[in-house]
Amino acid sequence: MMAAPGDIEDLIGLMARLPGLGPRSARRAVLHLLKKRGPLMAPLAQAMAHVALSARDCVTCGNIGTDDQCPICADPARANGEICVVADVSDLWAMERGGAFRGRYHVLGGTLSALDGLGPEELRIPRLVARVSEEGTREVILALAATVDGQTTAHYIADALAGSGAQISTLAQGVPVGGELDYLDDGTIGAALRARRQV
Amino acid sequence: MMAAPGDIEDLIGLMARLPGLGPRSARRAVLHLLKKRGPLMAPLAQAMAHVALSARDCVTCGNIGTDDQCPICADPARANGEICVVADVSDLWAMERGGAFRGRYHVLGGTLSALDGLGPEELRIPRLVARVSEEGTREVILALAATVDGQTTAHYIADALAGSGAQISTLAQGVPVGGELDYLDDGTIGAALRARRQV
Ligand SMILES: [Zn+2]
Ligand SMILES: [Zn+2]
Repeated sequence: MMAAPGDIEDLIGLMARLPGLGPRSARRAVLHLLKKRGPLMAPLAQAMAHVALSARDCVTCGNIGTDDQCPICADPARANGEICVVADVSDLWAMERGGAFRGRYHVLGGTLSALDGLGPEELRIPRLVARVSEEGTREVILALAATVDGQTTAHYIADALAGSGAQISTLAQGVPVGGELDYLDDGTIGAALRARRQV
Repeated sequence: MMAAPGDIEDLIGLMARLPGLGPRSARRAVLHLLKKRGPLMAPLAQAMAHVALSARDCVTCGNIGTDDQCPICADPARANGEICVVADVSDLWAMERGGAFRGRYHVLGGTLSALDGLGPEELRIPRLVARVSEEGTREVILALAATVDGQTTAHYIADALAGSGAQISTLAQGVPVGGELDYLDDGTIGAALRARRQV
């Protein structure tokens, strides 16, 4: 027996696929939306549809934006010659919230993982190597988590860029062992960036 | 400084207003959606827009459906003469998942609360009294939480229906003191319904 009309059960099922929401919390979230159909549900649906249609991966760096080039790649005020390599768009957002870095980014889309079948090709690493050569990049800052996969990826990239002429550095002070960048406060990220060390 | 493009920050802000999601988990949920734009984000936006436009409160019982009459009020197979009174649509859904009740419902939209400014008028109690009279209801089952507000509401309704000729009963066995109906398993709700006692 259906507990709610079919359309509403479908919505609950889709909401339950979001990280952090199980079936029960998805049901409560949908009930809250149903009570606030005008002030919350309609604007949320519209905002989501708009982003779903307009969002795309930046062809240069892999960041998410609404044009072929993301706002950061398209910004003439950002410093050329410095590329900060992050695993995920959430890490880029965390770096930007800190506001300490004014160069360009390269979003890998994950870290090397045999388990998940993520090799260099899946991670935009060949594209990074090409960018460093094309753009004459002076410094590549590897802003990857201090986890086994993160450090494996950092070493792989450092090897791939050896002989490119670019200085390779990593975030040093402040990144906790086993910690994810996305959970760090802005000050910690800024300190880690300033104290970056050369690989 | 924006961490994500403005449209995406707007979406994160709306998502953060859902119960169970704070700003950080809303950000992670939106990032997940951005990675699954085709398979998840677009269908979720569409389902949400559809429900936001089509959902309405049943004019008879206060349940949420897509027509003036909800599916339960419109179902000729449901027993007339029995009305189960619940505080919220989520409680109705919990009762329906149990499948033990085959009569009609009346959704109050909350419980009496001086603190929240919820009086009998706000809770569709006059409408319930009118229904019992119009429909010649034999039994009104008060399926309200065993909290102070729930029991105050139950007593208020029992008083309001005194002299209506309807038998008033409450869920008895199995409703934990201070517990919300929505969190009970289906068997517990069925047992409480079968062991209901007359007020
Ligand atoms: Zn870009
Ligand atoms: Zn109804």
